[in-house]
Order: sequence, then C-alpha cells, then structure tokens
Amino acid sequence: MTHRFQTRVWYEDTDLGGIVYHANYLKFIERARSEWVEALGIDQNAMRKAGQIFAVTRVEADFLRPAKLGDRLDVETDLANLGPARLVLNQRVMLENTLLFRATVTLACLDGARPVRLPDPLRQALAR
Amino acid sequence: MTHRFQTRVWYEDTDLGGIVYHANYLKFIERARSEWVEALGIDQNAMRKAGQIFAVTRVEADFLRPAKLGDRLDVETDLANLGPARLVLNQRVMLENTLLFRATVTLACLDGARPVRLPDPLRQALAR
Amino acid sequence: MTHRFQTRVWYEDTDLGGIVYHANYLKFIERARSEWVEALGIDQNAMRKAGQIFAVTRVEADFLRPAKLGDRLDVETDLANLGPARLVLNQRVMLENTLLFRATVTLACLDGARPVRLPDPLRQALAR
Amino acid sequence: MTHRFQTRVWYEDTDLGGIVYHANYLKFIERARSEWVEALGIDQNAMRKAGQIFAVTRVEADFLRPAKLGDRLDVETDLANLGPARLVLNQRVMLENTLLFRATVTLACLDGARPVRLPDPLRQALAR
Repeated sequence: MTHRFQTRVWYEDTDLGGIVYHANYLKFIERARSEWVEALGIDQNAMRKAGQIFAVTRVEADFLRPAKLGDRLDVETDLANLGPARLVLNQRVMLENTLLFRATVTLACLDGARPVRLPDPLRQALAR
Repeated sequence: MTHRFQTRVWYEDTDLGGIVYHANYLKFIERARSEWVEALGIDQNAMRKAGQIFAVTRVEADFLRPAKLGDRLDVETDLANLGPARLVLNQRVMLENTLLFRATVTLACLDGARPVRLPDPLRQALAR
Repeated sequence: MTHRFQTRVWYEDTDLGGIVYHANYLKFIERARSEWVEALGIDQNAMRKAGQIFAVTRVEADFLRPAKLGDRLDVETDLANLGPARLVLNQRVMLENTLLFRATVTLACLDGARPVRLPDPLRQALAR
Repeated sequence: MTHRFQTRVWYEDTDLGGIVYHANYLKFIERARSEWVEALGIDQNAMRKAGQIFAVTRVEADFLRPAKLGDRLDVETDLANLGPARLVLNQRVMLENTLLFRATVTLACLDGARPVRLPDPLRQALAR
C-alpha cells in the first residue's frame, strides 16, 4: 500500500541554478519515511534512547525533472523488500502527475554500528 | 494580525546534541515569511524573474528552549515596523504554549544589490 | 586575540537569489567557533559523551553584503565577554578586506537543559 | 588521475544519531566535484551567467561506515565515463584509509532544462 506525504519547496531548498539542490530530494524522501514509520507505530525518539537508529545503507536515485520554489511535492513510498535486518523502499517525488525524482533506498536497523533485527512492531505491521 | 504557520522537525533538522541545530530556526521562520508574503499576494518566483528579492538585513534571535525530532512547531509572525524600503517582523516559534525561539527580523527589498521600494501590493496589504 | 578561520562557499550554500542563503552564515561562524574551542583544547565529542554541549542562546546579526559561489571567506572571532556560565563572541565574515556579515553570539554550556559552569580548560585558556 | 579534496565534518553535518546525516555525503562529494571542475578550468559562475549548469541526473551510493564530528574526510574523484552530453564519476569518501562512502554520479550539462554538449574546455581537459 502506497504511503503518501506532502512537503513544500522553500527558499532554503533552492540553489543558484534556481531549482532544488539535488541532495535535498534525499531530505524530502527521508521526511516521508519518518511519517511512514510513525504511521506504522514506531517512535524514532524512543528507538534512539534505546540506542537504535535506522540507517540508510544504499540509495539509487534518478533526478528526472527539477522542482521549484513553492512547489507542493507528493512523496510516494512503497515497500519493495523486507529482510530480517533491512528493508528496501521505492520512493517517488511527484509534482501533480509528473514524476520528478525516484529512488530505491535500503535501510538497516543499527544498534551502535551493528546491524540488528528490525523492530518487531515494524515487522508485524509490514507483514500485514 | 498574527500570521500562523506550522512546520515539523525532521531528522535533517537535528544535530548530535539530539535537538534542533540552532541555524535551522532561521529556516523555520523563513518558511513562515514565505507563506506570509504569499498570503499577502506576493509571488516570489515572479519577483525574482523581475530581478528583485527580499533579503534579510538584520536578525536578533533568542534561543530559549530546544525543539526535538517530530515536534510540530507553530511559527507566529507579526509586523513590527513598515518603512519605504524595509520592514521589521517579530517572529516566534512555539511548541503548543511554550515559546522556544523568538526573533526580530529586518528585511529589505533588493534589485541586484540595491535597496528598492517594497512592492506596492505588499505595502497596500500591510497598510490595511 | 582574533581567531581566524577560512571556509569556502559551495553550491549547497547558495539559493535562487544567486547568493549565500542567509541562515548559512550562522553555519560558517559555527565552524569557526568549533575550530576556536578546539584550538583552546576543548574536545566537543568528549564533552557530548559527558552530557554537555555548547548552546547558542542569542544572536544579533547584520547581513551587509552577499557572498557568492566559490568565495573564500575569512571568519574572525573575538571574545567579547566571559561570565561563569556563558561567553559572548564577536564574529565577522570577510571577503578579503570587505565585511560581509557580523554577529554577536552568546553561548552557554548546558548539561541536559541546565546551564552549567563553562569547562575549566576553556575558562583558563580564555583568562590568559 | 584521481582528484583529491579534503573537507571537515562540522556540527551542522551531524544528526541526532550522533553521526553525519546521510544526505550530507552528497554535499561533500559535490564540493569535491566543484574543485575538480575548477581545476579543469571551468568557472561555474560564468557558466551559470551563460544559462548553463551541471545537473546530477543519477546517483548510486553506498553508505558503509559513519563519519563523526571533527573528522577530516578525503574525497577521491575519478572519471568513469565521458559521453557527448554527460559524464560519470566514481567518488569515494575516506577517513584515513577507511572507505566510508562511495558513489557513482552521472552529470549532464543543461541549458535551461535541455541537455547540451559538455563545455569544450572540460571535454578537452578530460580527453587528455
């Protein structure tokens, strides 16, 4: 089931090319993932207090069309693969019906620097 | 009349102190100003094509309490002073009823590097 | 004694106005403060492990002239005032001999959310 | 021939996980590319005035080990492929002899939104 999240382009996101600075798309899709894990019942503040964080381990990203100041972007997130200690997501940044950016993102759950099993509430929610 | 804007704290906004990195409050209040000028009928993309931008010329800011990951912050903006080529705003970042940050921000309208008269639609809207 | 630090303007620092985004000057002067406290013998990673951080509590900043892509900026830092739990710095961002930005920055040392006495090595170094 | 560039991790680069926020590695390698094209005789300010910019069109990135506050990172850049309108670079972020991050980055030269032939000085320099 596709998770949807909306975010807006602010002055801070642009660069002297007049468009969104490329690295900022990674921020946009990370905001969407934060809302997605929250919707699945995960509290990232509590995780961090327990010494665990989600870490991005791999990104494959295509920058297709530029976003501009004021654009209201829709970020779509789908689960592509679920392993014991990692998950893979497909994420897209849309402006209305136009695809601007797409990425395949691999995440691991880390305890310190060590990969650990994904949190059970997340695994159960995703298995549904 | 107080303008209100809500923004959320994302992972990107935090630093290793576990709280929002101080410079990012300036981004939060800039987002609020962008929505505020938009609500007053100003199109910053059009302004820029005409060679004009709003520039911050002075900030006095107090960092009172820290914001944390996931916080839904309210930014309140009030006009404090309106001159021919500059305006002064009072801005506050609130978490529910707690004041986290406040700033007095002076803005000029620049054409290239030269200060020019504020756009008439803005002046008229603010004079009301 | 004035501390000097050089930093360069990258694409990421610019905005669609073609110049450095205003909030990024706070990053430039924070980099200079990090080198300054390091030069005084303070290890911010160790401080943080001990639960302490430096926090900016107040900034007064004037944005005088814009910096541009590729500029090599000099940040000058001077101690203005030293109290038991806080210190005040004057910082300037220069491009060759031109002053682009100046700020007066108040810092406190926090243990959790509570202000504590500045680290002794810092106090001793600054008293010299 | 490998291009080498050094950059340091500042407070602004970290997140509440205590390490560098993942999207910031894209900034680090972009700084290296800016120095690399500059070393090849390209002036990005002049390019932009002529209406042209380099745009990232694809990134494949592996986040292998975290960088921390104060780390002095070495970014290594190698040309992997040179086409008429695009080039592909291999980039690595090293801490001393440890590989922290690697990416394959595809760049196009855009005039407005349209891909155009890479600047001749760049092509000639790279053909050598």
